Amino acid sequence: MAKVKKQPRPKAVTPKGFRDYFGAEVTQRKAMLDQISEVYQLYGFEALESSAVETVEALGKFLPDVDRPNEGVFAWQEDDDAEWLALRYDLTAPLARVYAQYRNDLPTPYRRYAMGPVWRNEKPGPGRFRQFYQCDADTVGASSVAADAEICAMLSDTLEAVGIPRGDYIVRVNNRKVLNGVMEVAGLSGDDKEAERGIVLRAIDKLDRLGTDGVRALLGKGREDESGDFTKGAGLNEEQADVVMGFMEAKRASGTETVARLRELVAASEIGVAGVQELETIAELMAAQGYGPDRIVIDPSVVRGLGYYTGPVYEAELTFEIKDEKGRPRQFGSVAGGGRYDDLVKRFTGQEVPATGVSIGVDRLLAALQAKGRMTKETVGPVIVTVMDRDRMAHYQSIVGELRAAGIRAEVYLGNPKNFGNQLKYADKRNSPLAIIEGSDEAERGVVQVKDLVLGAEIAKTASLEEWKGQPAQSEVKRSELVAVIKKMLG
Amino acid sequence: MAKVKKQPRPKAVTPKGFRDYFGAEVTQRKAMLDQISEVYQLYGFEALESSAVETVEALGKFLPDVDRPNEGVFAWQEDDDAEWLALRYDLTAPLARVYAQYRNDLPTPYRRYAMGPVWRNEKPGPGRFRQFYQCDADTVGASSVAADAEICAMLSDTLEAVGIPRGDYIVRVNNRKVLNGVMEVAGLSGDDKEAERGIVLRAIDKLDRLGTDGVRALLGKGREDESGDFTKGAGLNEEQADVVMGFMEAKRASGTETVARLRELVAASEIGVAGVQELETIAELMAAQGYGPDRIVIDPSVVRGLGYYTGPVYEAELTFEIKDEKGRPRQFGSVAGGGRYDDLVKRFTGQEVPATGVSIGVDRLLAALQAKGRMTKETVGPVIVTVMDRDRMAHYQSIVGELRAAGIRAEVYLGNPKNFGNQLKYADKRNSPLAIIEGSDEAERGVVQVKDLVLGAEIAKTASLEEWKGQPAQSEVKRSELVAVIKKMLG
Repeated sequence: MAKVKKQPRPKAVTPKGFRDYFGAEVTQRKAMLDQISEVYQLYGFEALESSAVETVEALGKFLPDVDRPNEGVFAWQEDDDAEWLALRYDLTAPLARVYAQYRNDLPTPYRRYAMGPVWRNEKPGPGRFRQFYQCDADTVGASSVAADAEICAMLSDTLEAVGIPRGDYIVRVNNRKVLNGVMEVAGLSGDDKEAERGIVLRAIDKLDRLGTDGVRALLGKGREDESGDFTKGAGLNEEQADVVMGFMEAKRASGTETVARLRELVAASEIGVAGVQELETIAELMAAQGYGPDRIVIDPSVVRGLGYYTGPVYEAELTFEIKDEKGRPRQFGSVAGGGRYDDLVKRFTGQEVPATGVSIGVDRLLAALQAKGRMTKETVGPVIVTVMDRDRMAHYQSIVGELRAAGIRAEVYLGNPKNFGNQLKYADKRNSPLAIIEGSDEAERGVVQVKDLVLGAEIAKTASLEEWKGQPAQSEVKRSELVAVIKKMLG
Repeated sequence: MAKVKKQPRPKAVTPKGFRDYFGAEVTQRKAMLDQISEVYQLYGFEALESSAVETVEALGKFLPDVDRPNEGVFAWQEDDDAEWLALRYDLTAPLARVYAQYRNDLPTPYRRYAMGPVWRNEKPGPGRFRQFYQCDADTVGASSVAADAEICAMLSDTLEAVGIPRGDYIVRVNNRKVLNGVMEVAGLSGDDKEAERGIVLRAIDKLDRLGTDGVRALLGKGREDESGDFTKGAGLNEEQADVVMGFMEAKRASGTETVARLRELVAASEIGVAGVQELETIAELMAAQGYGPDRIVIDPSVVRGLGYYTGPVYEAELTFEIKDEKGRPRQFGSVAGGGRYDDLVKRFTGQEVPATGVSIGVDRLLAALQAKGRMTKETVGPVIVTVMDRDRMAHYQSIVGELRAAGIRAEVYLGNPKNFGNQLKYADKRNSPLAIIEGSDEAERGVVQVKDLVLGAEIAKTASLEEWKGQPAQSEVKRSELVAVIKKMLG
């Protein structure tokens, strides 16, 4: 028999741009998703979990980053004749497919929420992963901007529900129709100007990062960044660029003033005026429901990168400062956004179906709460029953059985029990509050030792060796009273 | 300008073998995952959410269905030089990778639970999808069979926690070492007999479906199924097949008797005897903790399809009958399974790391509860505030605002309000308990109409037209008392 060639060992690594989440990272995200979905449900939205895999044809091409190979998605083909499949890159494109597929069975309007991972085939960077969570709510089949206003109100309620206090966030609202009006006024409205409009859109979206000079450069000939990379501009002349810059800087002290300024800017454009009118209606609805400018404002600099928006667009920004990797203060920035996309369902059905919705970047929101120190990374571990005597395993298991029956998280140490120190080290690594010790001596006397590991750690920090040996953190408890005592200790 | 060729509309379909989940299907699964993870946590397991995407190299080849192209996974390569990536096909292979990658930081034993979708590139069938949920718990780094026994006990507790009463399920335990012993006795232990062992394993795993005659055929020359397809057998002679069949039929009335019979069968094999010894220890531990044969039994016919098991294997089966598509009664079958796999981490590190764990097929378990009528497919919808007067939208929004503030699920109808009948049809489709109606007349008088849609539907079924017109299901409520009244009505 031929000698079998030994295969090299596989590398134990996550693929580039992917990561794993441990313990509290998982349970805290789950808790946040629970809080968000509770608000969404209160607003009448129903759950939907669509398939993570879609046909590439159904997903469409809506990611801003269209220049890259695979166009931003992870896609594959089973064999040469088979259709291309891909992982969803957001939760909106699948919703459009679901609504088109089931529209005869679904209520109209269809109000659904969805949460789960999405995948982007993009260049990973610090804090930028290729798999991340989104949590969306959308209303399909409602053309009224009341639907948009409602989602802005819900977004505000949701941020407060997950622990961002009023004043630490702002929901900013704009309207793509106003932007289209600006394009018209600037002479950029023809079919042959689509590429230029795209560059203008992306330039405005980068205002936060590049400042007005950077945006202005992108509106004109282009911009060279610090690394020397050159980004081609939209090629607008001074006058055209002035119109766009005027729009971005139209924000005034109050919503009424901002709307008035926008009305001036787009007076010559029918669609622009319609957009201003919609903004006005949203502002009125918000005011009537008590959502003042401390929560929701009209802001012309909001455009949202995605190409499919057709009306109101909105964005939630956290306004507090955090420290970046180098300790410099910076604004935390956007954690959620959305808008109206009246053409996504039409792709499938040929009929226009109005729709609007929001997507919350759950991982970013979690990072924000962590940065503000509102979340610890630790969970309380289980009570550990140590193993002094291997033959008494069944007995130790019955102790944890009793504890669990009383609702107390507990486990027997299942590693090699030979080295007792390792058992306590394990309890420490698990962040266990208590360890239980029962050797044959204790068993005979009908008692167990309970070691308070939290207090023990405190004492270890400050106490002398003599004090430590006195073991004030350890006490003897009657076996029959164990559950009651532990319940009390964990209080 | 050249005329742009019109692209055909994309098809609004889920890819073959995938599906979407709506409303209660999502929330009920979530509730079940919550119940399961609560038990897992009580037993001391920590959450882990690994990346859904792995390198193909790290995933390894452990699916039973090795003959197919792509070997059962969805895989892709970004470009010709890049490494192959794939969607995880279970939660165990990723755990082995995670443990190997982070072993210096993780506690040992590492006890983790995980839940989420997994993907299989397999032929879809009725009720058989290419994306489904698993919910796993594993202990890595514990060689003691106490770890296996604990997982069997936890599996039993978990099934009861999700609503399967004792008596409606059974956890069956076996040991691969016993099976290896049987292979040895049957003369199938050499490296050159690997293919035959694989066929024997898969044949035993199909006992439920094929019966003893079918299995016996597969142990011998092979078997032709009803459709005429022929499956090649292991080519065992009569004597060899007798040994294997004797093992499968070794189950006796009590665990002690079964173990005694197994001991006879594998007496000539060292590894077989070691396996019997482990089974005995597990049986003792279970008995000491009060898990009797009404919950957990030793059963030699359990082998589990996956190739990587090395010791104890276990499986939870629901024992009640359900009706199949054709109305015939059948056993529901397996909903969870697992076992010991001491070599999975070794693939990466070269060092053997003992591990054992269970995987619950959450979607199957949900289907079982539905089949037993223990779950409805409906959720209670929101209270619907109808729109009688478009100009009063802000006012209607303030009504739902008040209701939501009181914790009542509510929404304003956001579709076209012109046809009032459509609004009530919408409320019906949403399964709404109540609709609120406020026209200008009511607004002037400071009242609203509340329509009890549940009662209304009841009356509509039985009442005459006259009675129906009397509208006993509708009542007038003072606007100022609305929230209190609705709270009481939903009470």
